[in-house]
Amino acid sequence: MFDKEVYIARRQTLVSLMAATAPEGKRGIAAFLGNVDAPAQYKANGYKFRQDSTWLYYFGIAEPRFAAILDLDAGTATLYSDDYEIDDIIWTGPMPSVASLAERVGIAASAPYAAFDEAVMAAQVQERPVHIIPPSRYYNTLKMKTLGLTEPSVALIRAIVSMRLVKEDREIALLDAACDLGQQMHAIGRDAIRVGVVEQDIVGRMEGFALAKGWGVSFPTILTQHGEIFHNHSHDCIIEPGRLMVIDAGVESNEGYASDFTRSYPTSGRFTPKQRDIYTLVYECNEAAFAMIRPGVAYRDVHLSVARRMLEGLKAIGLVEGDVDEMVAAGVAGLFMPHGLGHNMGLDVHDMEDLGEDLVGYGDDQKRSSQLGLGSLRMARRLVPGNVITDEPGIYFIPALIEKWKADGTNAAFVRFDRLKDYYDFGGIRLEDDVLVTADGARRLGPNRLPIAPDDVEAAMKH
Amino acid sequence: MFDKEVYIARRQTLVSLMAATAPEGKRGIAAFLGNVDAPAQYKANGYKFRQDSTWLYYFGIAEPRFAAILDLDAGTATLYSDDYEIDDIIWTGPMPSVASLAERVGIAASAPYAAFDEAVMAAQVQERPVHIIPPSRYYNTLKMKTLGLTEPSVALIRAIVSMRLVKEDREIALLDAACDLGQQMHAIGRDAIRVGVVEQDIVGRMEGFALAKGWGVSFPTILTQHGEIFHNHSHDCIIEPGRLMVIDAGVESNEGYASDFTRSYPTSGRFTPKQRDIYTLVYECNEAAFAMIRPGVAYRDVHLSVARRMLEGLKAIGLVEGDVDEMVAAGVAGLFMPHGLGHNMGLDVHDMEDLGEDLVGYGDDQKRSSQLGLGSLRMARRLVPGNVITDEPGIYFIPALIEKWKADGTNAAFVRFDRLKDYYDFGGIRLEDDVLVTADGARRLGPNRLPIAPDDVEAAMKH
Repeated sequence: MFDKEVYIARRQTLVSLMAATAPEGKRGIAAFLGNVDAPAQYKANGYKFRQDSTWLYYFGIAEPRFAAILDLDAGTATLYSDDYEIDDIIWTGPMPSVASLAERVGIAASAPYAAFDEAVMAAQVQERPVHIIPPSRYYNTLKMKTLGLTEPSVALIRAIVSMRLVKEDREIALLDAACDLGQQMHAIGRDAIRVGVVEQDIVGRMEGFALAKGWGVSFPTILTQHGEIFHNHSHDCIIEPGRLMVIDAGVESNEGYASDFTRSYPTSGRFTPKQRDIYTLVYECNEAAFAMIRPGVAYRDVHLSVARRMLEGLKAIGLVEGDVDEMVAAGVAGLFMPHGLGHNMGLDVHDMEDLGEDLVGYGDDQKRSSQLGLGSLRMARRLVPGNVITDEPGIYFIPALIEKWKADGTNAAFVRFDRLKDYYDFGGIRLEDDVLVTADGARRLGPNRLPIAPDDVEAAMKH
Repeated sequence: MFDKEVYIARRQTLVSLMAATAPEGKRGIAAFLGNVDAPAQYKANGYKFRQDSTWLYYFGIAEPRFAAILDLDAGTATLYSDDYEIDDIIWTGPMPSVASLAERVGIAASAPYAAFDEAVMAAQVQERPVHIIPPSRYYNTLKMKTLGLTEPSVALIRAIVSMRLVKEDREIALLDAACDLGQQMHAIGRDAIRVGVVEQDIVGRMEGFALAKGWGVSFPTILTQHGEIFHNHSHDCIIEPGRLMVIDAGVESNEGYASDFTRSYPTSGRFTPKQRDIYTLVYECNEAAFAMIRPGVAYRDVHLSVARRMLEGLKAIGLVEGDVDEMVAAGVAGLFMPHGLGHNMGLDVHDMEDLGEDLVGYGDDQKRSSQLGLGSLRMARRLVPGNVITDEPGIYFIPALIEKWKADGTNAAFVRFDRLKDYYDFGGIRLEDDVLVTADGARRLGPNRLPIAPDDVEAAMKH
């Protein structure tokens, strides 16, 4: 938790941003819910508690079952939760009072949890606007629905996004620390790659480190010899020789900040020539993207530059043919990289995703593409200092997708489907770093960049 | 997943148990929901998927977003889920078709996920009874609520409980395997206890093992020098000399079966005389309980016998005084052990808790006590072969509770509040094994019982 002044200042900024929505006296309230415990099995057997990120940003308290209301006219805040009784103390130990927790984050007024509902209903009776953000957890969806609150406030979302998109120095320090942990965890994973080992064994080692040093992993670990499946969470395969292993994983720090790195390794310790060609191309794309990142550049343009670079390389290898400009325009790169170049990262690994991908990642002057790949780009905005984004190009050979394009005749003039046949068992490669936009350029987060150049990767592997 | 015959037989048994609820043609349907992914941050960033236990028992498929309907009149089953489309294949890989998954668990009919809602509504229009169990997950609560299904069926719950309470041999084998993993994980924890180490560090090592070899931990690990706080999940303390460390933790196997063990260790490697006295008493209670476990004995009576044994010991130490029978009747043991002696264990670590603690743990002839301790007993039933229960006595010194009893004058004739002052910084001790009720007695689950006798514990610690 930061000093109370941080939360006071953030809430003040939010209130002043919301002042534009209506004249004084007509602005209403902003109602926020923290998370409750999420059941894994039965209700009392929860997953490890994770607080809502927007809640953490404005209210700091990382305990379940809190709510708050910001009065946008009066500028005051009220914190809602229940003080512990003797049964709670027996089962979960003593807790500071709600009033004292409120004080720690600079809130003068507190009340029982049930009073949140009453305050919302009172505002509704008075016909004051009630601004909410989209709930991520189903418990909060239920609760908001019961209160008749089903429409998120675009004004509130825009105000929050404008603040959380630009990381404060204190947040950057925590992101650097989370990236440090993420890089250490990746080294553990890399060092454990051995032919014959079950993937789950490596995942356990990595996630154990994440739990020992941080909150845990910032998202379910992707560790797979089927890199062509982006979010592959089954880990029952045994490591085979000659394959490529994609590890996409990050640590969330105890303070709630994410890291997110991807590296791709030859399971036998050395790339085959075919693997090295594709790997080198992805590596060059990663470096090219980083070199472009600076304030004023739209990340959508960086994505498109990478697509161009990728198509040039694939043309040299002989997997596509024709005019590169035309291929970029036609979206041919989407066959090989059907995802975006990167996303915002902060308290969420895809920062603020539930506030609406377009409101978070697209400026008012930008429209989301419908093309495969570019259409999945979560961050298109013109960059400003303090943005934290991922740089994660990848090349994949997805048999089902290639077969579909071939059958549909999609971009048949450019794609050498005949040659792609030889890549159906290739898998995929992705290389991801976390990048801070600085005043005059960019800096990769974390103290020790994971080895990425092909020779460095081979040298780093323990074989 | 077991062979399809297992699921077919279980569903047939369930249908025949439900036959008693109404004449043929009037029995209606039983509607089951599997789990969907549980969001940790935003919706697409979920916790590790965990299937609903009742779903696993009758339908076996450990994938998100499945539903099923058992027609209790026709005796037929239908499985509901959506086949993957190209986007799903890109992001999460190929999946067998819903029809082929249905076939694997012996179900002939399948339909899209949305057809589940239609089938429920059709049954409602026909005024057929729709039996459901209480949803554990809030997503399922929302879904059932939308369908107007808010009242769980006691008949269905009773039928399910009667089956799941008595473990099949194939389940016992999996519970033994989960207990093997749980015992290995405990050994890792024990070996890592060192003065100066942060508790979180040990938790990470243990949970990493659970993830490497099983699904993960079967409940959030309790590892604390404040054993007097039962469900203490903060791990930011540094291990201090001369304290007691309670480790209550278990592994869930990849097949979904739980283990649950507790041991208590002297942080310096040797018990102080004061610690050894209390420890020895808890150890004797654990052994005494196990010696009583056999078919025909009510576990409520085992709890009460342990309470008696505990009070005799505490009287010898001088912390209570008076007639032991009177103390048992007055519930004096609840001050020291404000929880029950044990609970059922199976696919859930507190097996079936969300089906209703009393329906699961209490026979028709048993009433739940309102006394502290006995009132928290989750398993009171007369034991039958195939029951799997925990044996977990504990003694704690909870300052807030002792002060409350003192202030209220609760059992003032028996409790030596003056002497308890010396135990306010003692913490707590709990010792837990998992026990199978056999044809003629009991067997502890897991191949290697964790050291428990005081000398054995000291000998096992690496110092």
